[in-house]
Amino acid sequence: MKILKSLFIIAFVVTILVPFSHAEDQKVRWKLAMTWGPTLHPFVDTVESMANMVETMSGGNFVIRIDASNKHKSPFGVFDMVKLGQYDMAHTASYYWKGKDVAFLPLTTMPFGMTTPEQYAWFYEGGGMALMQEVYGQHGMLSYPGGNTGNQMGGWFRKEINSLEDLKGLKMRIPGFAGQVLANLGVTVTNIPPGELYTSLERGTIDALEWVGPGMDIKMGFHKIAPYYYTGWHEPATELQFLVNQKAYDKLPEKYKEILKVAMKTASYDMYIENYHMSSEAWSSIKEDYPNIKIKTFPEEVISAMVDSNDALVVQYKNENPMFKKIIESQEAYMKKSREWTYISDYLYLKSISDAKK
Amino acid sequence: MKILKSLFIIAFVVTILVPFSHAEDQKVRWKLAMTWGPTLHPFVDTVESMANMVETMSGGNFVIRIDASNKHKSPFGVFDMVKLGQYDMAHTASYYWKGKDVAFLPLTTMPFGMTTPEQYAWFYEGGGMALMQEVYGQHGMLSYPGGNTGNQMGGWFRKEINSLEDLKGLKMRIPGFAGQVLANLGVTVTNIPPGELYTSLERGTIDALEWVGPGMDIKMGFHKIAPYYYTGWHEPATELQFLVNQKAYDKLPEKYKEILKVAMKTASYDMYIENYHMSSEAWSSIKEDYPNIKIKTFPEEVISAMVDSNDALVVQYKNENPMFKKIIESQEAYMKKSREWTYISDYLYLKSISDAKK
Repeated sequence: MKILKSLFIIAFVVTILVPFSHAEDQKVRWKLAMTWGPTLHPFVDTVESMANMVETMSGGNFVIRIDASNKHKSPFGVFDMVKLGQYDMAHTASYYWKGKDVAFLPLTTMPFGMTTPEQYAWFYEGGGMALMQEVYGQHGMLSYPGGNTGNQMGGWFRKEINSLEDLKGLKMRIPGFAGQVLANLGVTVTNIPPGELYTSLERGTIDALEWVGPGMDIKMGFHKIAPYYYTGWHEPATELQFLVNQKAYDKLPEKYKEILKVAMKTASYDMYIENYHMSSEAWSSIKEDYPNIKIKTFPEEVISAMVDSNDALVVQYKNENPMFKKIIESQEAYMKKSREWTYISDYLYLKSISDAKK
Repeated sequence: MKILKSLFIIAFVVTILVPFSHAEDQKVRWKLAMTWGPTLHPFVDTVESMANMVETMSGGNFVIRIDASNKHKSPFGVFDMVKLGQYDMAHTASYYWKGKDVAFLPLTTMPFGMTTPEQYAWFYEGGGMALMQEVYGQHGMLSYPGGNTGNQMGGWFRKEINSLEDLKGLKMRIPGFAGQVLANLGVTVTNIPPGELYTSLERGTIDALEWVGPGMDIKMGFHKIAPYYYTGWHEPATELQFLVNQKAYDKLPEKYKEILKVAMKTASYDMYIENYHMSSEAWSSIKEDYPNIKIKTFPEEVISAMVDSNDALVVQYKNENPMFKKIIESQEAYMKKSREWTYISDYLYLKSISDAKK
């Protein structure tokens, strides 16, 4: 009987302790709100891929439910929903919050700013992550890169732009900061909901619009009604973002924190690559079906005027907002070095092949 | 007494079952062999970062020990060591195995080949991963991208290259396939161990050499003795690789498989970004300390001759090796579309800014 009793005690103690030794494998259920609808590729793929990685790497124990905007009904409410803890995280873009604080703006992209590799290097090696956290920390949130579109196109135009004069009175859909840059050059900037863009361009309500790049533009059909496709200047490396509620994050076991961070990072890099692929495929297909479409670059005087208009607005915001100033100056200093390397490496490589083929 | 007995039985059964319900959290100890020594940054950082991610994401249960070449003494033996299961995995580069099978060569980079984003898009979206596995599967191994150097420089030259004639008799250290391309244009190609490169260049045993790019070249000190730094042509997107023993991989629990794959992928993307950073910082520092160093691009007739020499060698290998042919044709088809997008997006963006500043 004594032996039985001892065995019972040992068994009891082990029964209590064994589950604790695996206490980290707790079930975690999170909710994520996207600014986008459920079919906006590749944005949605990025979120799904992140959630799948998290689930598989945690052995099915850390599950993130994804709500698209048709579910939560508040595309631009995701900031506050994560801040208040109604959602644990969101997938969105930082520049949507510039109305709250203009310091959010340069964490997405800036006109004439960094290219995608330059910008990732700034985030991960040049102090960008710490600056971003300085901004989001004030709102009880963590923020991470959420996928890059690569260099966005300048937009679809029904008329050719040959001079600064051609911008005067031009009716264009181009939202946000870039819209201000063009408004100061005489463009009549309008904001039209995505679902009405095609008809507006077709009927001449607008003369031009920008969307993303071939990979995402092709489904909108703009190539059927506008013959000039201008190269990019205003969103050279649009980075989406993951927002995470700080308190929810703090409660995660250490290994889930790492799993979440690594999955977000990988999914973000992957989106850049996926969109690169989508854009080269889509452009190839557009060119084949609509051989008359012309790739155009704005004339030098137009680019120079855009640069000046952009610089003037940046100076204005710098004066108004010290954190905006701090971020922009960090980016400017970083870009000075990294842009030189971009020219020496990929640019001169591409140029030398192009020149030799002439 | 009956109650005690029942309790004992319940406790005993639970004690047996609980550990099984967490059977996935098994301890796994792996060994990785690097081709490199322990201080070759950023290559070594990539491996350490991968192993750290794996360890943290597995809650300390999946640990990878890293052996540098000073430990295992066989930099180019890592292929066979992983194949035979002496190591579970390796960090190396695919083009080192072209002596075994030339199909290994284009899985690293090719002269006048894809840039880094183009190549990642080919690997992950354009069928590259499946082709790579076709080659490595024959050897009982899995292969994954292992970090990209970005566009490598054409090398350090003591004399300027103004014509094809200047290549004749030029003594240059440039190993592998690119060396063959130059040898066919009259260059005397030599292979000198890394430790002797500086002295060889200084004493004129060689007139030129290629290494990687500013980030890694700066420690070698070549900028102190060679005034011309030529832009790249022969390794536009050198991708390192992780090799994994198939049997060792098959034994991993599902969640460790995903943890390993995601960690390798993230670490690889990260190396591209880290080396981007290192190169822009290093070039900025070299330029400041040695203002007389000139960035040069080979003249058009030299580039054209290199392209022709490269094309002729590629045709020769295509005829000799059907798998090499299959991979090259996949890359050529992919590059045709993706290069056009590269020109339209980043290239014309950079060009338009550069032109506007003139």
